[in-house]
Amino acid sequence: MQGNSQQQAYDRGTNIFSPDGRLYQVEYAREAIKRGSPSIGIRYENDDDAGVVFVASGRLRSSLQVADSIEKIHKVDDHVGVASAGHVADARQLVDVARRQAQVERLRFGEDAGIEALTKEITGYIQEYTQAGGARPFGAALLVGGIDEDGSPHLFETDPSGTPYEWEAVAIGGNSEKIQGYLEAEYEGDTDADGALELALHALEDASEGGLESEGMSASIVSGDGFRSVSDAELHEMIEGNGLAPDEESDEDDEE
Amino acid sequence: MQGNSQQQAYDRGTNIFSPDGRLYQVEYAREAIKRGSPSIGIRYENDDDAGVVFVASGRLRSSLQVADSIEKIHKVDDHVGVASAGHVADARQLVDVARRQAQVERLRFGEDAGIEALTKEITGYIQEYTQAGGARPFGAALLVGGIDEDGSPHLFETDPSGTPYEWEAVAIGGNSEKIQGYLEAEYEGDTDADGALELALHALEDASEGGLESEGMSASIVSGDGFRSVSDAELHEMIEGNGLAPDEESDEDDEE
Amino acid sequence: MQGNSQQQAYDRGTNIFSPDGRLYQVEYAREAIKRGSPSIGIRYENDDDAGVVFVASGRLRSSLQVADSIEKIHKVDDHVGVASAGHVADARQLVDVARRQAQVERLRFGEDAGIEALTKEITGYIQEYTQAGGARPFGAALLVGGIDEDGSPHLFETDPSGTPYEWEAVAIGGNSEKIQGYLEAEYEGDTDADGALELALHALEDASEGGLESEGMSASIVSGDGFRSVSDAELHEMIEGNGLAPDEESDEDDEE
Amino acid sequence: MQGNSQQQAYDRGTNIFSPDGRLYQVEYAREAIKRGSPSIGIRYENDDDAGVVFVASGRLRSSLQVADSIEKIHKVDDHVGVASAGHVADARQLVDVARRQAQVERLRFGEDAGIEALTKEITGYIQEYTQAGGARPFGAALLVGGIDEDGSPHLFETDPSGTPYEWEAVAIGGNSEKIQGYLEAEYEGDTDADGALELALHALEDASEGGLESEGMSASIVSGDGFRSVSDAELHEMIEGNGLAPDEESDEDDEE
Amino acid sequence: MQGNSQQQAYDRGTNIFSPDGRLYQVEYAREAIKRGSPSIGIRYENDDDAGVVFVASGRLRSSLQVADSIEKIHKVDDHVGVASAGHVADARQLVDVARRQAQVERLRFGEDAGIEALTKEITGYIQEYTQAGGARPFGAALLVGGIDEDGSPHLFETDPSGTPYEWEAVAIGGNSEKIQGYLEAEYEGDTDADGALELALHALEDASEGGLESEGMSASIVSGDGFRSVSDAELHEMIEGNGLAPDEESDEDDEE
Amino acid sequence: MQGNSQQQAYDRGTNIFSPDGRLYQVEYAREAIKRGSPSIGIRYENDDDAGVVFVASGRLRSSLQVADSIEKIHKVDDHVGVASAGHVADARQLVDVARRQAQVERLRFGEDAGIEALTKEITGYIQEYTQAGGARPFGAALLVGGIDEDGSPHLFETDPSGTPYEWEAVAIGGNSEKIQGYLEAEYEGDTDADGALELALHALEDASEGGLESEGMSASIVSGDGFRSVSDAELHEMIEGNGLAPDEESDEDDEE
Amino acid sequence: MQGNSQQQAYDRGTNIFSPDGRLYQVEYAREAIKRGSPSIGIRYENDDDAGVVFVASGRLRSSLQVADSIEKIHKVDDHVGVASAGHVADARQLVDVARRQAQVERLRFGEDAGIEALTKEITGYIQEYTQAGGARPFGAALLVGGIDEDGSPHLFETDPSGTPYEWEAVAIGGNSEKIQGYLEAEYEGDTDADGALELALHALEDASEGGLESEGMSASIVSGDGFRSVSDAELHEMIEGNGLAPDEESDEDDEE
Repeated sequence: MQGNSQQQAYDRGTNIFSPDGRLYQVEYAREAIKRGSPSIGIRYENDDDAGVVFVASGRLRSSLQVADSIEKIHKVDDHVGVASAGHVADARQLVDVARRQAQVERLRFGEDAGIEALTKEITGYIQEYTQAGGARPFGAALLVGGIDEDGSPHLFETDPSGTPYEWEAVAIGGNSEKIQGYLEAEYEGDTDADGALELALHALEDASEGGLESEGMSASIVSGDGFRSVSDAELHEMIEGNGLAPDEESDEDDEE
Repeated sequence: MQGNSQQQAYDRGTNIFSPDGRLYQVEYAREAIKRGSPSIGIRYENDDDAGVVFVASGRLRSSLQVADSIEKIHKVDDHVGVASAGHVADARQLVDVARRQAQVERLRFGEDAGIEALTKEITGYIQEYTQAGGARPFGAALLVGGIDEDGSPHLFETDPSGTPYEWEAVAIGGNSEKIQGYLEAEYEGDTDADGALELALHALEDASEGGLESEGMSASIVSGDGFRSVSDAELHEMIEGNGLAPDEESDEDDEE
Repeated sequence: MQGNSQQQAYDRGTNIFSPDGRLYQVEYAREAIKRGSPSIGIRYENDDDAGVVFVASGRLRSSLQVADSIEKIHKVDDHVGVASAGHVADARQLVDVARRQAQVERLRFGEDAGIEALTKEITGYIQEYTQAGGARPFGAALLVGGIDEDGSPHLFETDPSGTPYEWEAVAIGGNSEKIQGYLEAEYEGDTDADGALELALHALEDASEGGLESEGMSASIVSGDGFRSVSDAELHEMIEGNGLAPDEESDEDDEE
Repeated sequence: MQGNSQQQAYDRGTNIFSPDGRLYQVEYAREAIKRGSPSIGIRYENDDDAGVVFVASGRLRSSLQVADSIEKIHKVDDHVGVASAGHVADARQLVDVARRQAQVERLRFGEDAGIEALTKEITGYIQEYTQAGGARPFGAALLVGGIDEDGSPHLFETDPSGTPYEWEAVAIGGNSEKIQGYLEAEYEGDTDADGALELALHALEDASEGGLESEGMSASIVSGDGFRSVSDAELHEMIEGNGLAPDEESDEDDEE
Repeated sequence: MQGNSQQQAYDRGTNIFSPDGRLYQVEYAREAIKRGSPSIGIRYENDDDAGVVFVASGRLRSSLQVADSIEKIHKVDDHVGVASAGHVADARQLVDVARRQAQVERLRFGEDAGIEALTKEITGYIQEYTQAGGARPFGAALLVGGIDEDGSPHLFETDPSGTPYEWEAVAIGGNSEKIQGYLEAEYEGDTDADGALELALHALEDASEGGLESEGMSASIVSGDGFRSVSDAELHEMIEGNGLAPDEESDEDDEE
Repeated sequence: MQGNSQQQAYDRGTNIFSPDGRLYQVEYAREAIKRGSPSIGIRYENDDDAGVVFVASGRLRSSLQVADSIEKIHKVDDHVGVASAGHVADARQLVDVARRQAQVERLRFGEDAGIEALTKEITGYIQEYTQAGGARPFGAALLVGGIDEDGSPHLFETDPSGTPYEWEAVAIGGNSEKIQGYLEAEYEGDTDADGALELALHALEDASEGGLESEGMSASIVSGDGFRSVSDAELHEMIEGNGLAPDEESDEDDEE
Repeated sequence: MQGNSQQQAYDRGTNIFSPDGRLYQVEYAREAIKRGSPSIGIRYENDDDAGVVFVASGRLRSSLQVADSIEKIHKVDDHVGVASAGHVADARQLVDVARRQAQVERLRFGEDAGIEALTKEITGYIQEYTQAGGARPFGAALLVGGIDEDGSPHLFETDPSGTPYEWEAVAIGGNSEKIQGYLEAEYEGDTDADGALELALHALEDASEGGLESEGMSASIVSGDGFRSVSDAELHEMIEGNGLAPDEESDEDDEE
C-alpha cells in the first residue's frame, strides 16, 4: 500500500480529510495492526457457564527472551480482560485507560463497569486522537471481553478510528482475515471455555504454516469465576492434544 | 471528487477559505458521510399521537458480528433520539455532547431540553471544529428528533459545517439523494408510527438493489410515550409483511 | 476569482499581509458571504413610529425541509434583531456573541445595550479572528438593528474584517449589489414598517428572476413595541398584494 | 510593490528578519495604511488657547450609508482624541487599548494620562505583534493628540512597527505624502482651532482631485475645554466658506 | 539506512504513520542505539543466590578522560539497577524517571517497586514521546534489572517504541546482534554472579576485535545483598584471568 | 548580504543552527541595527568626576516632526542611562525591561542596581528570544551606562545574541565601524563630560558627510550628579563651537 | 561542513532523528562551540593542596573594549567555578542555571552541591533542549570544576547533547583538538595550581600562532581556599616568565 502523490497530499495530517472523505492516518494505523501477530476472542455460553476466551500469539526475538513478557492479554478488572494486536506500546496505554476507567466506574456507581460502557470509554478516547491535531492515532486494536452484572458475556473490538464493534468471535492483527474465515465457518456459541479455546487454536493453526508453537502464545478466560490465565502447560497440552503442534517438534515437546 | 492543484492549495487547512469562499475540509467531511450507510428520520402527527421515527441501515463486517453493535440510533433523553450517518466514532462523540447537554438543560431549567435548542447546542459545537485550527471537522451528520414539552414532534439535521436544518422527513448518508427523492414523492405527515416506519423502509428498499435485509438494520420511535427501540422481530416482520425482503431469502427468513 | 501564484503566496494565512497590504483570507470570507442568499435591513422613522425591518430569503433544499428552519433573522434582545448572510453556522456563533453581550450590558449597566455599542462588541470579536493565528475569519455578515433607549432606530452591518458600518438601508449576501442599487434609488426613510417591508420585497424581486416565493423567506420588525416576526401568512399576502410572486404560481398560492 | 522570490523567502512570517535586517510584514502593514483614506492632526498654541485638531476623510460605500459611521476620530478620554488611518477594525482595537489604558492611569495615579505616556503604552502593545509569532502586525496608524496636565498640547503618531513619533502637524493614510508636503509649506503653530482646521482642509483639498465633500469627512478638537466633535454643519460651512467644495456641487450643498 | 523519497515523506514527524503502518522516527531512534557501545544484562539464579549482572563498555575520548564518567550503569534503588545504550543524555533522563518512580512506589505502597511495574512506568513514559507531537522519541534503550520482594530476579529491556521485553540475558547497543548470538549459545541461568559476569565478558570479547580493555568498561551486580558496583580492579582481574585482554597490553596491565 | 539557497535553508527559524554553527536570524538582527543611525557612549573619569556620556543622532522624517520624539537616549534610573540603535520599537521594549529590573533590584536589595548586573538581566532576556521558538530576536542594541554604588562609571553594550560587552568608548548603529575607528584613535579616558561629549561629536562628524546638524541629535550625561539630558541649545553651541556644523547652514543656525 | 540535500531533510528540526540515528542540530551546536576561542580546565592534586584551574582566552573586538568583560570564567559558588566556550549568551544562561541549582542544593541539603551532582543538573537541563520541540540546543560547552565536601577536586564537561564527561585536563572551543593533544602529552596531576596554570598556558601557546597575549585572557583557581580569579598582572607575568608572549611585543609589555 504505497501512496501516490495525490494521496500524499492528504495523508500526513491526522486532522484532515482527503477529498473523498477518507482519514488516511487512521487507515495507516490499521496497517500497523496487521503488521503484528494475531489475537482472537471468542464468546461462549451454555446452560452452566458463559464467558469469553482470549488467545494471543507472539513472536520471540531470541531464545533468551522470557515468553511471558510478550504480554498481549491483560486483566483489566475481575470480570474484564483485554487482548491486543498491533503496536504493543500503544496497546499498553489503552489498557491503562481501561483499568483507570473500570476503577472510576466502580467508585462512581458502586458496581462493575459494563463491558459495553467500558469499551465506549476506550473508543471515545481513541477517537480524540483521530480528530485533534498534534498526535497520531493509536496503532493498536483491542478486544475487550467479560461478564456483565447480569451474567451475560460480551466481546467488543476497538479499532483505530475509535469505532466499537461487538462480536461473537473475532480475530485481529496479522492474518486476521484468514483466521476470521475459519471462525465464521466453525463457530458455535453453545460450548464451554475449553471448546472455545480449542476453536481459537484450530483457527490459528489453520492460518499458520506448519503448526503452532506454545512459546510466545498466551490464553485467558473470563467467566463467572473471574479472569483466569491459562497456564503454559495447559496451553501446551491443548496444542499437543489437538495435534496442532509442528510435526518435527512434537516429540521433543512431549518429553518436557 | 479528486482535487486539482488549484484546489489543493486551499483544502488541507480547516481554517482557511479558498479564493471563492469555500471551506474544502467541510466539503470533504460531507463526502465522509456519503461513504457510510443511510439513516432516515420521519416526523408524523395525527389526532392521537405524534412523534419521530428513525430507521438506520448498517453493514455487517462478518456473520459473527453482533448486529446490535452497529449502533446508529441512540437514545439521548426520554424524549429525544439521534440517528447518525458517516464516521461512526465521530458521531458517537456528538451523541455524548447531546446527552451531556440534555442533562445540563434539565438541571438548569428544570424541564426537558427543547429539540431545537438541543440541536443548536450540537451545531454550535460542530461549527467550532470548522473555524479553530488544530482539529478536523466532524465527519458525521446527526438526525435529532423528539417531542417538545408542548407535545409537538421535531426533527433536525446537523451537518459538518454546523448548520441545523429542520425536516419533515429526511435521509442522510450513502444513497441519501435517491432516498430523499422517494420521501418527497410519498411523504404524508398525517400518519402514525407504523406508517412512518413503513415509508422509511419502502424508501430504503427503493434505493437498494435487491431488497432489504433486517440484519444490520435498526429502528426507533420517539413519541409521547418516550423513546422506544423497535425490536429486530418487529422490524423483520415489517420488512417481510411489506414484501421488501430480497426474493431468494424471504422463505428462509420466515421460518426463523 | 481564482488566485495566481503570486497571490497564493500570501492568501493561506489569516495573519499575514500581502506585499500590497491586503488580507486575502478576509477577502475570501467576503466571497463566502456572496455565495449565500441575500438579507436586507431598512430603517424607518415617522412621527408615530420608528424601527428597523429585516427581510431574508433562503433556499429550501427539499420540499420536505421546514421553511422556518432556514433561520436567518434572530431576536437578540427585546429591542434588537439580527439578520445574517453567508456561512450559516458562522453567523449563528456571532448571534450567540450578540446575545451574551446584550445580557452582560443589561446586567452591568441596568439598561438595554445601545445598538452601536452592541455592534462594536461583535466587530471587535470578529477582528480578533483576522489577526491572531490559528483560526479563520468569520464567513458571515450580520445586520444588527434595533431601537436605542432614546427611541431612535439604528441599523449596522458587520463585515468579516470586523468593521462596523451604519446604514439607512442595506443588502448583504448574494446579489447584494443589485439590490442595493434598487434601495438607493427608492429608499425614503419617512415611512412605516409596512412601507419598509414592501420596499425590501420590491428590491428582492427586482434582483430575482421571475418573482418571489414566500417559502424560505422571512421577515421581522424591531420597533418601539419590540421584536416581532412577520408571519408567513402576512408575508405571503404582502408578496401577492404587491404582485411580486412568480406569474405561474400566483393562482395556486391564492388558494392555500 | 510586488515581491520577488528572494523577498518572498522572508516576508510571510512576522517573526523573522530578512538577510538585510528588514521586517517585511511590518512594511506590508504600512502599505495597508496607505490603501485607506487620509487623516490629519495639527497642533496649535496661542496666548489664549492650545490644542490639537483632527480631520479625517472617508469613503461612503453608498448614498444610504450613514456618514457618521465612518468613524475615524475617537474620543479616548476627556482630554485625548485619536484619529486613525488604515484597516478600520485594527484601528478600533487600538482605540480600545488606548481607552482602557487611560482609565487605568487615572485610577492608578489619580490624574489624567499624559499624551506621551499613553502613546507609548499603545506602541508597546503594537510592537509585541511584530515580534511574537502567531499574529500579524496591526494594519493601522493612529494619531494620538490632547492636552497634558500642564496645559501643553501634544500630537503623536503610532506606526505598525510600534514606533512613536511626535508631530506639530502630520498626515497619515492615503495621499499622506502629498498632504504632508502642503502642511510643511503652510504650517504655523501660532493659530487657533479654526485656523488649524482650515489648514487641514486646505491640505486635503490640495491633494484631492476636484474639491472636498463634507460627506464622509469628520473633524474634532481637543483643547483646554476637552474633546469636541465638529458638527457636520460647521464642517460643511468651513469647506464652503473656504471655497474648497467641488465646483459643480457647491450650489446644491448650500441648499441643504 | 538512507531513506528514499517515498520514505522521506513520512519519516520526519514523530506523530505520523507511513502508509504501511510504520513509525519511522522510532525506527531511527533504534539506529541511534546501535551507534553506541554495547551493554549486557544477565539474570542468574542458583540455590544460594539470585540476581542480575550488568556489564557496559564505553569509549574514552582521550587518555585524560576519567573512565568512571562514562557512566552507563546506574543504581536506581537498593534492589534495582539500570544499564543503558544509545544516546547518553537521553538515557540519563530515563534513569531519573526510574528513580523518581521507585521513590513514589515506595512511598505509596510502603514496599519496593516490582521490577516489572517499574519497567512499565518507564515504557509508558517512553511511548508518549512516540505519539504526541512536539518532541522526538528517546534515542536510548535501558536494561532494568533487580530483585522483587519475593526474591526473584528479573531483567527487562525498554526500547524506543515504549515496549517492555523480559530477558534471561540480553545485549543492547552496538554489535548487540553478535553478542546476543554468543549469549544464546552459552547462557545457563544456573550460575552465580561471577559466572554471569564472565559470560558477559566472554560475549563482549567475542564480538570485539582484539580483546577487552577494562578502561571504559563497568559492571554491577544486583542481588539479594542489593546493588553493588564491581571495582575496576576486580573487573581488570577478571578480564586478565579469563585471557580476554588484548595480547600486546596484558603484560603492562599486570604490573599496575 | 543576500542569502544563497544553502543559507536560506537555515536562516528563517530563530531556533535552528546552520551546519557551521551559525544563528542566521541573530546575524540578520545585527543588520537591522546597522540600518539605523548611530549612537555613541563614552566613559570618562578624572580626579573630580566620573561618568558616561551618550550622543545619539536621528533622522527627522519631516520639518514638522518634533525632534525630541526621536528619543534614543533614555533615563533608566537616577544613575543609569541607555542609548539605543536599530529598531526603535524593539529598543523601547528593552528599555522597559531595564527600568522594571532597576526597580526590582532596588526593592530587593535596598540599593541601586549595579550597571553590570542590570546589563546582564537585559542580555539574559535578549538571549531567550534567540533560543526559544515563536518570536524573533530583538533588532536593537543598547548602550547601558552609569555609576555604580562605589562611584565607578561603567558602559556596556548589549547585542542581539544577548552577549554583554564592556567598553570605554563605543559606537553602535549605522556607520559604527568608521566612528569606532575615530574613537580608538582619539579616546582618552582622563577627561570630563564636556571632553567626552566633544569627542563623540567629532567622531560623528568625521563619519558624516558635510557636518553635523543638531536637529535630531540628543545627548545625555550620567555622572555622580545623576542622569542629565544635554539641552538642545548646549548641544547646538557645542557643535558650532567645535566647527562641526555644515558650512552652508552655520550662519543661519547662529541666529536662532 | 556543508550539508547535502539528504542531510538537509533532517537537520532543521531539533526533535527529529536522521535515518542513521543522528541528531543534526546537536552536531551543529557543537560546530558553534568550535567557532569560539578555547577554554581549558586542569585538575591538580598534591599532598598539600588540590583544586582545578581554568584558563580562557577571548578576542577583543576593539582596543577600547574592556578586557574583563570577555567573561568566560564564572564563580558559581564558593567552591565551584565554570569556564565556557561557544555562544557566550547561551553559556551565561547555563551559568545562571548552575548558580540557582547550587543555591537550591545548599538550601535543601544544608551542604555544598557536589560537583558531579551539579553538573548533572545542568546536563539534564541541556538535554531537554535537544528533545522537546520549539527551541534550539545550547550552542555552548561548560567546564564545571571545584572541590567536593570531602576535599577532592573534580572537573566535568557538559556538551550540547547534555552528556557529562569527567576529565583530568580538557580543552573546549576553537583549536581544542590541538590543545588537548598537548595536554595529553604533558599532563601530570601531581602538581600545584601554578603548575597547572603554566601547563594550560603552554598548551594554549602551542596551539596559537606567534605567542600569547594576556589581553582577553583570564584564569581562575578553585581550591580548598575557594574560588579565586588570577589577576591580570599575575597572568601577564606568568606568560612573560614562561616566554610565551609574542616576540615583538614582549618588550613593550614589560614596561607597563
